[in-house]
Amino acid sequence: MAKLKAILLNCSLKGKGDEPSSTEKLLGEVAEQLKKLDVTCSTVRIVDHNIKFGVEADMGGADEWPKIHDQIIASDIIVFGTPIWIGHRGSVCQMVLERMDAMLSETNDLGQLPLYNKVAGCCVVGNEDGAQNVSAGVLYNLMQFGATIPPNAEAYWVGLAGGEDDYVDLKKPHPYTQKLVEYISHNLVHLATMLKNNPIPAEGNKAE
Amino acid sequence: MAKLKAILLNCSLKGKGDEPSSTEKLLGEVAEQLKKLDVTCSTVRIVDHNIKFGVEADMGGADEWPKIHDQIIASDIIVFGTPIWIGHRGSVCQMVLERMDAMLSETNDLGQLPLYNKVAGCCVVGNEDGAQNVSAGVLYNLMQFGATIPPNAEAYWVGLAGGEDDYVDLKKPHPYTQKLVEYISHNLVHLATMLKNNPIPAEGNKAE
Amino acid sequence: MAKLKAILLNCSLKGKGDEPSSTEKLLGEVAEQLKKLDVTCSTVRIVDHNIKFGVEADMGGADEWPKIHDQIIASDIIVFGTPIWIGHRGSVCQMVLERMDAMLSETNDLGQLPLYNKVAGCCVVGNEDGAQNVSAGVLYNLMQFGATIPPNAEAYWVGLAGGEDDYVDLKKPHPYTQKLVEYISHNLVHLATMLKNNPIPAEGNKAE
Amino acid sequence: MAKLKAILLNCSLKGKGDEPSSTEKLLGEVAEQLKKLDVTCSTVRIVDHNIKFGVEADMGGADEWPKIHDQIIASDIIVFGTPIWIGHRGSVCQMVLERMDAMLSETNDLGQLPLYNKVAGCCVVGNEDGAQNVSAGVLYNLMQFGATIPPNAEAYWVGLAGGEDDYVDLKKPHPYTQKLVEYISHNLVHLATMLKNNPIPAEGNKAE
Repeated sequence: MAKLKAILLNCSLKGKGDEPSSTEKLLGEVAEQLKKLDVTCSTVRIVDHNIKFGVEADMGGADEWPKIHDQIIASDIIVFGTPIWIGHRGSVCQMVLERMDAMLSETNDLGQLPLYNKVAGCCVVGNEDGAQNVSAGVLYNLMQFGATIPPNAEAYWVGLAGGEDDYVDLKKPHPYTQKLVEYISHNLVHLATMLKNNPIPAEGNKAE
Repeated sequence: MAKLKAILLNCSLKGKGDEPSSTEKLLGEVAEQLKKLDVTCSTVRIVDHNIKFGVEADMGGADEWPKIHDQIIASDIIVFGTPIWIGHRGSVCQMVLERMDAMLSETNDLGQLPLYNKVAGCCVVGNEDGAQNVSAGVLYNLMQFGATIPPNAEAYWVGLAGGEDDYVDLKKPHPYTQKLVEYISHNLVHLATMLKNNPIPAEGNKAE
Repeated sequence: MAKLKAILLNCSLKGKGDEPSSTEKLLGEVAEQLKKLDVTCSTVRIVDHNIKFGVEADMGGADEWPKIHDQIIASDIIVFGTPIWIGHRGSVCQMVLERMDAMLSETNDLGQLPLYNKVAGCCVVGNEDGAQNVSAGVLYNLMQFGATIPPNAEAYWVGLAGGEDDYVDLKKPHPYTQKLVEYISHNLVHLATMLKNNPIPAEGNKAE
Repeated sequence: MAKLKAILLNCSLKGKGDEPSSTEKLLGEVAEQLKKLDVTCSTVRIVDHNIKFGVEADMGGADEWPKIHDQIIASDIIVFGTPIWIGHRGSVCQMVLERMDAMLSETNDLGQLPLYNKVAGCCVVGNEDGAQNVSAGVLYNLMQFGATIPPNAEAYWVGLAGGEDDYVDLKKPHPYTQKLVEYISHNLVHLATMLKNNPIPAEGNKAE
């Protein structure tokens, strides 16, 4: 079997030149695990690309979404990473998922939605509260686009009520989050391998 | 002006005879503040009453909802207290709000929904994560039933990602939560006083 | 391969003796499809059983949860069916998921969470609005408990804004919902078959 | 009393030059009602301004947020209008609320959060499903920033499950949505008037 390919979408509000990103840190931990499991990883920092608001596959002009679209389609594993802001998925994450909405009009070679036979997971960081709601919503959207969601396909860190710390500032690893990183990485690989070897038959699930 | 009356609805899954309830603790802190502000407080522990599943005003049999319904209608201030379970408002909280759904078919003397001129707030506790989503949903439902939501009409406590502590077990007060208790209590009283002195005119808001 | 087994959990607020249930109708349509795909189906109407509020595996007394727990564990496919009330999963659905919370302390023979190698889907009905949020939350909880979520593992019907019709009263099939019924049924079977033939290895995903 | 001022924030993904916007239509209906009630209305179409991603009051460069910030602070009534995309508030709406997050570090003359004594409402449109969840979240964020939420401070339209129509394409008014437009407009004015005449005392609610 060819090596599995993963794309990690970093939906931080901050660009590469800015101060350290908690989203980057957590996604990086998942990427490190995936690499140990022999997965080729590619990380895209969305705000460093010119992505336009909209729900079309190509919004024209200098829109750089099409190339990210193609990287997603070429991957076996899709991992979203997003900060929580005011309790919700960040605006950059929502913008990316809006662009993916156009995938509902595309199909793979078998006539299924284009994310069939891919698996998806989600990483979330915030100062406090909101991780599970964000994770549930992102994974659900990806499932609607055709991805399979393995068990425990999430990793998150949030602080206490009213917390002001960032994940990137933690002095030592947070055991619960480390366990989640372990789970998500292994289960993405387990299910992606399974689907690569045994794709979902195109019966009862063709897009119209 | 007559003293303001508050009803505090404790939606813990646990009854009075059970081990200490974090919901009870947080609601108690709000009640204490409200009393200092000269409000008459009445707390109802839902699971100690025979409340039936359903969406009718009276589900018949030994249904004890009607008396709680009447206490709500007789109050100026409504405070919900609920634990978070698996990231959501507890089932008891949802059951109570389902019963309140029947209020959408009732009106006050002016033809408005019965919670007009009342104010509502929400208290939420959990081991980790989910407080803001729960609070947003509960306050929104109460607004739909006609209540006014004052600024910062919430108090919550949640622990770190994967947290196992309970609010009731904290050794010392959590400053952020204490600040929220202060906010919610004062603002409920400020707005309830205002609405008691100047009820919302029955113009453009009569229920049909 | 032995026949696949599915359990369908009907979380209607109404019991068997009551008027027709929209949840029952939609779950029934999924069950019919599953049977055509050679799955043995068992439907449980929760309110017809004595299920206690709580988060323990057995709440004592006449608690009938343990037998439903065992049926879930013995199944390959788990389908939740819930009405939407005031925009949220019904209280009965939340009560069931609270009881399943105790599964986080259990493991299967391999040391994984007990829903590993099972697949889960969700059916939701309401007069208007709220289906996707309810579905996202239920599927996410089941994923946290160890289930795999196939693509398009949901079926729902909701009416227009302010809608008053019930799914059970529709004069003719709603094409979109019918398509979802087709998707969820086939994909539950495709993934359940795959996991039965190739269980998820117990590497990097043992519960602690 | 001076005339009340309202700002309506149109968070459509589409700019002024694009095809008709459903968000614009619904916000326009609320603005029309508000004008009849003698309110001065100002509508801002966010994507026609250069608003940067971030959570600072001024993100530098050609960032046009500061002038919108000032318009919000100068208003008595704040109305958000957003489309639903993939079940969630649009990315533009989330981006605006992220920018407002910086208001948590500001105060009014009395030391309260800057939205104290303002009222807020929300308008939501989508092809199907998601309006109430979006509305609940937006109103909750505004309440956290200090706004008061009047009863029934929302208007929305969504279609049937899987709906493909847009609000802007409806041939005739949708009675339920029209009723909500009536409610939100009148109640925003009722509560804004009340708060203008009787501001919330700066007791127990000063920001720190």
